[in-house]
Amino acid sequence: MLKFYNHAISWNTRRVWITLLEKEIEFEEIRFKLDGEQMQPDFLAINPFHHVPVLVDDDFKVVESLAILDYLEAKYPEPALLPREPQNLAVVRMVEMITVNELVPGIMPLIQQVMGIGEHSEERLEQSRQKIATVLAFFESHLGDNPYFGSNSVSLGDIVAGTVVTRLPSLGITLEEYPQLQGWCHRLSQRSAWQKTEPSPEAIKAFLSTMKKSMKMQKQ
Amino acid sequence: MLKFYNHAISWNTRRVWITLLEKEIEFEEIRFKLDGEQMQPDFLAINPFHHVPVLVDDDFKVVESLAILDYLEAKYPEPALLPREPQNLAVVRMVEMITVNELVPGIMPLIQQVMGIGEHSEERLEQSRQKIATVLAFFESHLGDNPYFGSNSVSLGDIVAGTVVTRLPSLGITLEEYPQLQGWCHRLSQRSAWQKTEPSPEAIKAFLSTMKKSMKMQKQ
Repeated sequence: MLKFYNHAISWNTRRVWITLLEKEIEFEEIRFKLDGEQMQPDFLAINPFHHVPVLVDDDFKVVESLAILDYLEAKYPEPALLPREPQNLAVVRMVEMITVNELVPGIMPLIQQVMGIGEHSEERLEQSRQKIATVLAFFESHLGDNPYFGSNSVSLGDIVAGTVVTRLPSLGITLEEYPQLQGWCHRLSQRSAWQKTEPSPEAIKAFLSTMKKSMKMQKQ
Repeated sequence: MLKFYNHAISWNTRRVWITLLEKEIEFEEIRFKLDGEQMQPDFLAINPFHHVPVLVDDDFKVVESLAILDYLEAKYPEPALLPREPQNLAVVRMVEMITVNELVPGIMPLIQQVMGIGEHSEERLEQSRQKIATVLAFFESHLGDNPYFGSNSVSLGDIVAGTVVTRLPSLGITLEEYPQLQGWCHRLSQRSAWQKTEPSPEAIKAFLSTMKKSMKMQKQ
């Protein structure tokens, strides 16, 4: 059976988790706390870059969340999470890459501020908000009247972007100016794969405590 | 005809450039210098994230280099640059993602040091070298006895990783410990798509001068 190295509140792992559930693939979950176990020799032999998620299929190890998604899509093609038509596929890939290269780095200062694990100037926070607004406008126009990105059914683009965009209101970023994205967030949050993987308040609290401890140790 | 917004010495654009040549696709090249033209309203309407590469196919715009590669693969399937077998595909995707998420960030301090556009402590440079060594060991084992990553013919993994790995010796990183990668670099450098896109010393000099000017302006 597939072994999935997971974490309770990481976007990178939740992408894989939701994909496994959307495709109804059986898997064994190994839940990491990221409190040091990722640096143990046993795990470094699985992923020398010491990140989760990792997927282990018999003795074949897949690292990097976006690579894992494509592996799952190739090995378990139904239900399809990638469109085949070139322009639709390009929309899905752009949404995936803009999420990881623009949206997530844009959000980080806001998260650190809200969670009390970092402090930033108002100028820096405003830059973040502007970058997020550029991403949301891009997403809104590429979603258009479609229920999902590049597809009539849920796609990898929805999974990668959705796990991040649905979190924005909790960081003080309203989606009011983006009616298509609001409807899309609502559609995603109704899906059982999303509901099952929603981080609990306890998991968030435990993660924050680990983060703060690790930052304290780095300062010493 | 396809319009390709290119830059003479960017890894991100060279991936797309080589892919266009490997697939023998006709295109019109628009060469950017990144000296401010990427912030002009005309270009922001094409890519609000003000990066190259961009590919414009009639009125369909594709941003993000890895998304462009997948668009080209879907629209021009021959010669195929992606394997279909799931494990081989996963190897290609891992190599792509590890290049952009581990290798390139690992290399940046060394590049800045060598090019005289940044200074780093010996400790920071040593961290860089260690990260690069981890990536190279991962690549060496995943290449194994195959001529290319996950394939008997050149793949997107080779294109994304190869444009970076072939540059390492110029940054003082030897490939002597990685015989498979050495042979692979040699094979890639024999290909006409690679030879045609090799940055000239003049292009590198011009880029450095633009970078230094832009850093000076940021300091003022």
